[in-house]
Amino acid sequence: MKEQEFITIIKNSLQSDLIGDDCAYLKDLGIVISQDNLTEDIHFSTKYIDAYTLGYKAAAVNISDIAASGAKPEYITVGLSLPKNTDAEFIKEFYNGLKDACGEIKIVGGDITGSDKIFISIAIIGTTKNRKISSRSNAKPGYKIIVSGKHGSSSAGLKELFNGKQNKFTQIHLMPKAQLDFSKNIAENIKEDYAMMDTSDGLADALIKIANASNVSMEIDFNKIPYDKDIEKFKDYKDLILFGGEDYQLVACVPLEFEVKNSFEIGYVKEGQGVKINGKQLTDLKLFNHF
Amino acid sequence: MKEQEFITIIKNSLQSDLIGDDCAYLKDLGIVISQDNLTEDIHFSTKYIDAYTLGYKAAAVNISDIAASGAKPEYITVGLSLPKNTDAEFIKEFYNGLKDACGEIKIVGGDITGSDKIFISIAIIGTTKNRKISSRSNAKPGYKIIVSGKHGSSSAGLKELFNGKQNKFTQIHLMPKAQLDFSKNIAENIKEDYAMMDTSDGLADALIKIANASNVSMEIDFNKIPYDKDIEKFKDYKDLILFGGEDYQLVACVPLEFEVKNSFEIGYVKEGQGVKINGKQLTDLKLFNHF
Repeated sequence: MKEQEFITIIKNSLQSDLIGDDCAYLKDLGIVISQDNLTEDIHFSTKYIDAYTLGYKAAAVNISDIAASGAKPEYITVGLSLPKNTDAEFIKEFYNGLKDACGEIKIVGGDITGSDKIFISIAIIGTTKNRKISSRSNAKPGYKIIVSGKHGSSSAGLKELFNGKQNKFTQIHLMPKAQLDFSKNIAENIKEDYAMMDTSDGLADALIKIANASNVSMEIDFNKIPYDKDIEKFKDYKDLILFGGEDYQLVACVPLEFEVKNSFEIGYVKEGQGVKINGKQLTDLKLFNHF
Repeated sequence: MKEQEFITIIKNSLQSDLIGDDCAYLKDLGIVISQDNLTEDIHFSTKYIDAYTLGYKAAAVNISDIAASGAKPEYITVGLSLPKNTDAEFIKEFYNGLKDACGEIKIVGGDITGSDKIFISIAIIGTTKNRKISSRSNAKPGYKIIVSGKHGSSSAGLKELFNGKQNKFTQIHLMPKAQLDFSKNIAENIKEDYAMMDTSDGLADALIKIANASNVSMEIDFNKIPYDKDIEKFKDYKDLILFGGEDYQLVACVPLEFEVKNSFEIGYVKEGQGVKINGKQLTDLKLFNHF
């Protein structure tokens, strides 16, 4: 049973048009809300991440979801379950990491309970005032596809962590930065509907999800995808760029003439179905999946 | 390390006046938000609860938090982590239970991931329009203390479940009802500041938390606390009434002259510190605690 199948069951059960994007857009309240889980030994191992960094990352991945919607992240609540033997130092450091990732975003509550393993679930609220909110079903033929930055570095970092190393890639993996400026530039200035997602589950995964939700096809020029040349030391670096998750960059489909500062154009949207990378269909795709 | 100590560390770390009540009141957005965790083998066991009932209860306990604030519950998001072997039927039933507990409240998103044990974290948003929001620090000398209904039934139900029984008490334990009418009656009509909490961790626990946060004392007449006479078959039924958790009734401190339909007056607020039950100080109190 895969995550995606579960989501299909839930969608069928709820029959809600508010399920589909990483954030739910509550128009009557002028907010978006999102919630993400991090589970020990599924999403992270305390062998490779300390309490401060875990707190930092837990906040950053949620902030990234709000960035993907185009909203301004403002408040988070933290549901934390911790084993009995957790000490005060862990909590202190975890919250220090959370605070540093949050910056001006306020931590306003949550819950803390016992468990066998560490479980973190963060809910985050963003405000939509003066911003146009994205939807992954908003890509239209003729739009260009842009990304906010380099892909592959985070999954290269995970490999390095497994090899006991610490370097710029492990840093990117452990302490990702949500692309708030890229998001704000689009959301505050665009007039037309647009699609945007973060690439938390990999660039290819985000492209396919947008193409499917929008019922369009995409042509991607692989050579235009920005990446750090130093990841070429990994034989499978092209897989890292396309399928490696957790870069927390943004990918957006916007009108051709809409200019976005510090963006990289990697392809365009067409009528049809599916995503082509250098003319080759992304069909037999091994997607990043927690199950 | 106890839950309460963790919370103290977190409060010190965040230095936020938004931490303290079960809900955070975000005045600029006209909402309250709350988040609660339910962890397998800590809060529930699949031996005693099926997927439908688990979904129902997970929603109900969160709805109760919003009821305690005086706000109107409107939206929930659901963070769910499930073991690999979870089947589609479980998800379907869990969401059916959620939906039934939610009624008009909309389920608008969340996250689903893998884990060793079931972990549920629900965030819930309530709106504050035309309602006065409570705070546990708002109890004032001269106020009366009222409850919305019977105490002890839920913990009696838990005992019955452990004994393999099913009856009205197990039903109350498994499918609690948030006291939305009681909450609405107060929040829409009261002019003065007031304190309100749900009795999820027991009536005594809620009284002590309000007394401490408000820096007041309380005198409770035990004989006025409503309970189901059938729990008298348990030798410790008085403990169940005071310390047994999960009744999800509301306890409020409101001005003496403020009338609340279907409420039970159990005592009053005075200057000083501590909670007295029939003149006896609740000091050496064994509080319901997840750690």
